Amino acid sequence: MSLIVQKFGGSSMASAERIQLVARRALATHRAGHRVVVVVSAMAGETDRLLQLASQLTKKPHDREIDVLLATGEQVSIALLALALQEQGADARSFLGHQVRIETDSSHGQARIQTIDAEPVQEALADGAIVVVAGFQGVDAAGNITTLGRGGSDLSAVALAAAVQADACEIYSDVDGIYTTDPNVYAKARRIDVISCEEMLELASLGAKVLQARSVEFALKYRVRIHCLSTFVDGPGSWVVPDADPQEAAMQSGMEGAVVIGIAHDRNTAWLTVHGVPDQPGKAAALFRALANDHINVDVIIQNPAIHGRTDVCFTVAGNVADRAVELMNAQHDAIGFTTLDCNKGVAKVSVVGAGMRSQPGVALRMFQALGDAGINILLISTSEIKISVVIDDRYTELAVRVLHDAFELEKVPGGTALA
Amino acid sequence: MSLIVQKFGGSSMASAERIQLVARRALATHRAGHRVVVVVSAMAGETDRLLQLASQLTKKPHDREIDVLLATGEQVSIALLALALQEQGADARSFLGHQVRIETDSSHGQARIQTIDAEPVQEALADGAIVVVAGFQGVDAAGNITTLGRGGSDLSAVALAAAVQADACEIYSDVDGIYTTDPNVYAKARRIDVISCEEMLELASLGAKVLQARSVEFALKYRVRIHCLSTFVDGPGSWVVPDADPQEAAMQSGMEGAVVIGIAHDRNTAWLTVHGVPDQPGKAAALFRALANDHINVDVIIQNPAIHGRTDVCFTVAGNVADRAVELMNAQHDAIGFTTLDCNKGVAKVSVVGAGMRSQPGVALRMFQALGDAGINILLISTSEIKISVVIDDRYTELAVRVLHDAFELEKVPGGTALA
Repeated sequence: MSLIVQKFGGSSMASAERIQLVARRALATHRAGHRVVVVVSAMAGETDRLLQLASQLTKKPHDREIDVLLATGEQVSIALLALALQEQGADARSFLGHQVRIETDSSHGQARIQTIDAEPVQEALADGAIVVVAGFQGVDAAGNITTLGRGGSDLSAVALAAAVQADACEIYSDVDGIYTTDPNVYAKARRIDVISCEEMLELASLGAKVLQARSVEFALKYRVRIHCLSTFVDGPGSWVVPDADPQEAAMQSGMEGAVVIGIAHDRNTAWLTVHGVPDQPGKAAALFRALANDHINVDVIIQNPAIHGRTDVCFTVAGNVADRAVELMNAQHDAIGFTTLDCNKGVAKVSVVGAGMRSQPGVALRMFQALGDAGINILLISTSEIKISVVIDDRYTELAVRVLHDAFELEKVPGGTALA
Repeated sequence: MSLIVQKFGGSSMASAERIQLVARRALATHRAGHRVVVVVSAMAGETDRLLQLASQLTKKPHDREIDVLLATGEQVSIALLALALQEQGADARSFLGHQVRIETDSSHGQARIQTIDAEPVQEALADGAIVVVAGFQGVDAAGNITTLGRGGSDLSAVALAAAVQADACEIYSDVDGIYTTDPNVYAKARRIDVISCEEMLELASLGAKVLQARSVEFALKYRVRIHCLSTFVDGPGSWVVPDADPQEAAMQSGMEGAVVIGIAHDRNTAWLTVHGVPDQPGKAAALFRALANDHINVDVIIQNPAIHGRTDVCFTVAGNVADRAVELMNAQHDAIGFTTLDCNKGVAKVSVVGAGMRSQPGVALRMFQALGDAGINILLISTSEIKISVVIDDRYTELAVRVLHDAFELEKVPGGTALA
């Protein structure tokens, strides 16, 4: 008998019919002999409805009260799902964040989970009940309601799975798994059977939207196995596993490992160049300190060798904060003493990801070759142990994704994809 | 500096504009130098919306989950009111039932308050904050969300007022006080300045709808002074005071006491007659036990002297449970051995209420005289220390209310109304 945590998002809870479908899925798992904990989000549209009510009263709401307001969305969901389960003959019991108890810090709107006391859940499971837990919400040490921020229900599910030592954490959504690239960009995209958390993190942070990055970090840290499935279509889904060595993970799942597992792209990218920065200690640091103080994340950074005591510094930031970054840089103009500042928003970042490239040289070569053959100019390059990112002209984004998908033969099930 | 608890119902919270009005009232009290605790109900219509969602999923919902569902209504209200208060420049802090903490028994849907730990409220008040508390909800000893039943927010307010030793509990609604009788029935109805809890209890349980009876019982027990006011119109309102002696209460408020304070009527009444009940010990008890087991409240009871070893037993029940009562009686037919059963739903109960009648004889005489002069036949009579009720043909209800209101000169401010 396994213990399974199942998480259903807002679109899966959008109507009575869908809630009944969710109940049937949970009950089928329970009747197959497993213990089941279900984590749910607010019904689709409910959070917007609540924020709309608040916006009629104030333009600058206090975070604490917004959390009290928004937490009702998941509370409605757990009650309705428990009722649907009971109607289908199950013993179901709902739990709020403070009842579980999911204790967080006091950062309203983006609280971080500190501890979970899974005792009440374990007791209800021992009674044979299906346990229904409100996602997205917690409680701080002083008893204030908190919320976990965007995608927080994924995090609730993974954290609960860790706390109750679940055998798997099933994340249901309207897509049936993780793909080698966005199927809307390239129809040859293939569903991935198994991916490591590290690879998933690179894909998620680079623009893939299936799983919230914080929940994958949590899964990696607490060794939770995530299974991404569709609420609406039966299928094998994709496993996201915490195994450090993806080759090993692949072997465990009966496959030879792929070197590159997927191609990510991110159009929300802007490329800033600060010309003529004095080549003195601390100048570059001053540049980035201004951005860090404003919580602007800097991604790729390139600094050219200095000529005549001055250098050019290039970096990328998210496209939607580019204007703010330019403002902050210009405010530092006199203090740093750079000459001019360029901002280019017409760029995109395309990345190949694969833990296998740790042990396989030649990935970068194959990547650059493929892009070059397609006539795509590389503006910036950045690499980590398991990914290579290039910044290119935004107009070539789809083309780049396709030629890279072809170059690494990602449409094929791994086994024949080892580098030549 | 006084400590005031203010309670606003669903119609006072029905829109952003009304919530802003509630915030202005609370803030005005606070700025007048008082400490303020506000208790609110769910926005008008919200409870029905939630029950409608549940009804799409099940026809026989479990009470525990319905409580989880309905408690969100008040949670939304406290967050919105706190936001509105903050927008108006106040320091406001919201509290849920479990945060206050309002601990109840585990009777979901009709829980009874056991204890209140007002510490968090006192701390917030000491910080200078306006405290906003969710009405209608509590938490049982095991941490399950409970609700207090119809009108439960009144009860929350009175119980909180007792727990924090408030100087007054202001109950705001869309009427501006307690009236000598229903103004829709008789335009001469006069707003009462001061009424005792005992009198209010008789009026409330007899059909007046301003204050929930349980909250008045609570006020009497814990000596809370209730002030009934209109949310929308400024005015002196009506005080409901726990003083045992209403004459004394009246004196304190600078008035001579009235013997009769109001006329109540209740059309939700049915009159059952069980004919030919054997005049043997235990037979009548068996009759009423069947009703009590089904939680049917029996009001007026008359038993005629036995003739030839048999007697007729008459009693009234609420009109909406009359059919069920008949069913239960018939099921006992053989066990009890009565002959026939009549049920008359075309009756109403009209009552004169006044604590002064304890010490003033002649009230019954004047009542029966007035009804007789108007040609109204009395079917049943029942009395308590401070009220006299008669059951009459429903067609004469309005007439009876008017002639009794005139007979006791209730349109006049007390002072000249002593019995001749």
